Amino acid sequence: MQTEKIPYKIYLEESEMPTAWYNLRADMEKKPAPLLNPETLKPMTAEELSPVFCDELIKQELDEDTAYFEIPEEIRSFYRMYRPAPLVRAYCLEEKLGTPAKIYYKFEGNNTSGSHKLNSAIAQAYYAKKQGLTGVTTETGAGQWGTALSMACSYFDLDCKVYMVKCSYEQKPFRREVMRTYGATVTPSPSMETAVGRKILAEHPDTTGSLGCAISEAVEKATSLEGYRYVLGSVLNQVMLHQTVIGIETKTALDKYGIKPDMIIGCAGGGSNLGGLIAPFMGKKLRGEADYQIIAVEPCSCPSLTRGVYAYDYCDTGMICPLAKMYTLGSGYIPSPSHSGGLRYHGMNPILSELYAQGLMEARSVEQTKVFESAQFFARVEGTLPAPESAHAIHVAIEEALKCKETGEEKTILFGLTGTGYFDMLSYGKFNDGVMGDYMPTDEELAEAQKTLPKVE
Amino acid sequence: MQTEKIPYKIYLEESEMPTAWYNLRADMEKKPAPLLNPETLKPMTAEELSPVFCDELIKQELDEDTAYFEIPEEIRSFYRMYRPAPLVRAYCLEEKLGTPAKIYYKFEGNNTSGSHKLNSAIAQAYYAKKQGLTGVTTETGAGQWGTALSMACSYFDLDCKVYMVKCSYEQKPFRREVMRTYGATVTPSPSMETAVGRKILAEHPDTTGSLGCAISEAVEKATSLEGYRYVLGSVLNQVMLHQTVIGIETKTALDKYGIKPDMIIGCAGGGSNLGGLIAPFMGKKLRGEADYQIIAVEPCSCPSLTRGVYAYDYCDTGMICPLAKMYTLGSGYIPSPSHSGGLRYHGMNPILSELYAQGLMEARSVEQTKVFESAQFFARVEGTLPAPESAHAIHVAIEEALKCKETGEEKTILFGLTGTGYFDMLSYGKFNDGVMGDYMPTDEELAEAQKTLPKVE
Repeated sequence: MQTEKIPYKIYLEESEMPTAWYNLRADMEKKPAPLLNPETLKPMTAEELSPVFCDELIKQELDEDTAYFEIPEEIRSFYRMYRPAPLVRAYCLEEKLGTPAKIYYKFEGNNTSGSHKLNSAIAQAYYAKKQGLTGVTTETGAGQWGTALSMACSYFDLDCKVYMVKCSYEQKPFRREVMRTYGATVTPSPSMETAVGRKILAEHPDTTGSLGCAISEAVEKATSLEGYRYVLGSVLNQVMLHQTVIGIETKTALDKYGIKPDMIIGCAGGGSNLGGLIAPFMGKKLRGEADYQIIAVEPCSCPSLTRGVYAYDYCDTGMICPLAKMYTLGSGYIPSPSHSGGLRYHGMNPILSELYAQGLMEARSVEQTKVFESAQFFARVEGTLPAPESAHAIHVAIEEALKCKETGEEKTILFGLTGTGYFDMLSYGKFNDGVMGDYMPTDEELAEAQKTLPKVE
Repeated sequence: MQTEKIPYKIYLEESEMPTAWYNLRADMEKKPAPLLNPETLKPMTAEELSPVFCDELIKQELDEDTAYFEIPEEIRSFYRMYRPAPLVRAYCLEEKLGTPAKIYYKFEGNNTSGSHKLNSAIAQAYYAKKQGLTGVTTETGAGQWGTALSMACSYFDLDCKVYMVKCSYEQKPFRREVMRTYGATVTPSPSMETAVGRKILAEHPDTTGSLGCAISEAVEKATSLEGYRYVLGSVLNQVMLHQTVIGIETKTALDKYGIKPDMIIGCAGGGSNLGGLIAPFMGKKLRGEADYQIIAVEPCSCPSLTRGVYAYDYCDTGMICPLAKMYTLGSGYIPSPSHSGGLRYHGMNPILSELYAQGLMEARSVEQTKVFESAQFFARVEGTLPAPESAHAIHVAIEEALKCKETGEEKTILFGLTGTGYFDMLSYGKFNDGVMGDYMPTDEELAEAQKTLPKVE
């Protein structure tokens, strides 16, 4: 099939951009478990969710049957400012590795937020605006999501309140400044602004914060203010839905040249990037039309798929969000301070969790220093300095390409390059100075964190 | 002509990318004045330049007649990793301004170096490698050039020594870290490593450095080491030559849709971006085939075109480089510490200087706070956070679009968006906090700086 010379970068025409998001659940025979009300332990209804989330987003969150959701023109118009994202043929990487494998990556870093997060941020801001809201609240860890949401809110003239995990707030002043440039209010979490923040600070005055805690603060703020709702950048099914633009564009680009990937690799924190990238391919796999090896890559220091349990858990530390059935380390799990960048959430998106439970995808965990080695290698060879998160996928793609070198197999490897490392130079600096450490929780530590799991029959 | 709907982003096919750089001097009736030997005051010969510069680059520097230089395949191969750069139709900006003007910008920020500088960096690294050199030295101010050169040297496995103006070195640790990630050595300038650095430090122990001083150190280092040459990121004719890929791609993209710009706007520091963008258009103008209004935009705090003199001057503070005839403020001129970002060089490329002297282009100077206002406005409306340098062009483009709104003229405005502001968040922070100042040198200060001009008959 591959007779035509594949260009370095495959760009779709605007007319070829997706007009609908794809809801993978529609093709799943066994659906993911429903969200539960933490008090009644019964499935959450749209009414119960409406004080927290925007109405249209709740519909998307709960809908298991509609295969396609049309992308509103206002969102498509914003997408056209920075999409289609390029699908890159990694010719230089292949040559440097001396592998017969063919390597492709979908690059989502070519926008000011620097990552794929903007794909869902603009959708969530749009539905908030459409509902006539004044603003939204959210949390951010590494800062990619907060930046993306600030941009999206600025575009629709919505107020944006971001609770930024305190250690990131202090280590990434420039991330914060980008959000402020886009008009967002950024508060280090835990803060004295919320009851949950005050409680945590009273108990742990020296805490550097966690994603779960920042989520609790953002939810409390949203529900206590008139005209506000809470929005989230990962984990939820609605977020994965929006991120399917990544996979759909990728598949369209590959199909144009008759390319079928043998292997699809993505980094996995909350799972929205991985889910978005693999969705249309997994759909074919579920329908029995094609097969692909799908690999989720997570950090050793936050190994929810590889070392977590598949169980109902709280989505946040404050235990005020719905319960989700997912691979989780327990909502009390906080990665070691030596952990860099994102991929630090204790759980995994429920759809991906169910697919993993069914054996439809694999998962691997990687040590941080190995990840940065691959990141630096990739930056030098392919020119793009990757985010540490994305470098997890790069690392496994390189490992697989080297296996092909040994076996002589000409596999086609596709991975997601979710973002750039411009705001992670403090971590790169540690790596450059040779003072970056690795961390792997002991079984005892994991068992301890699992004690925070709720009891659900 | 413009019947077809213009997309948000016009991407060329790889096959449409330029195969040659365009030497604008070939179409100039009155050529720019030659470089002079600072000791003999006679035109510099290739032999005299060869201890400092790479041989092929010297040929390009001195050649006034060859209209096209073929781009070697190795460089085109690297270009394909991040080029063609998109030509963007600023639909959102037009709508927000309510202008009948049609606005286009060529975006050069979609690569890890974050700016157009990579276009020349890879060319210079290639010729250094081809000559069998061990490495190159250079200076960097805001850091864009140093980053680009580090990437290019890493690609060709060349050693790279960067002298970074001390205040930038301290204010931009993340720029420095990107360069280190690509394997470069970064030294704050002035340093004790060179005679000129030691001399300046002895006289001014508290100096925060200047571009002119860093150039002197880099040149001294290159000439004192075996197998090294000095390379420069702007000002020189060779650099402008490489940057013509910007203008050639832009013109090809516009021609595809039958669009003729009425006005071309670029920020101007040393002039390489502006020169590269306007080259093919200016060529047509020189040949009498078309007319365009061309506007160079510079900061009020470093106004070489608008308030400088057209005279022979030193290219560096140490007065060891050749003399160039250019619009200059005097090599002793150092912009106020309140000046942010690049565009801080005391002179202007000799080709652009001659074109300006002949009245073929205009120049305007803009205050820093106005530039940041336009930068923030643009970031919010068009989604891309611009570098402060690029925002000079944005500012004048917006001014001109608003004039069209008043007059009802449907002008087509083209400007160069040279890079992103990811590494300028300290300056954005000052702007966000309302503590950014403006600075305009007095006539007396300019007269004082001009005293450093050499006497050349």
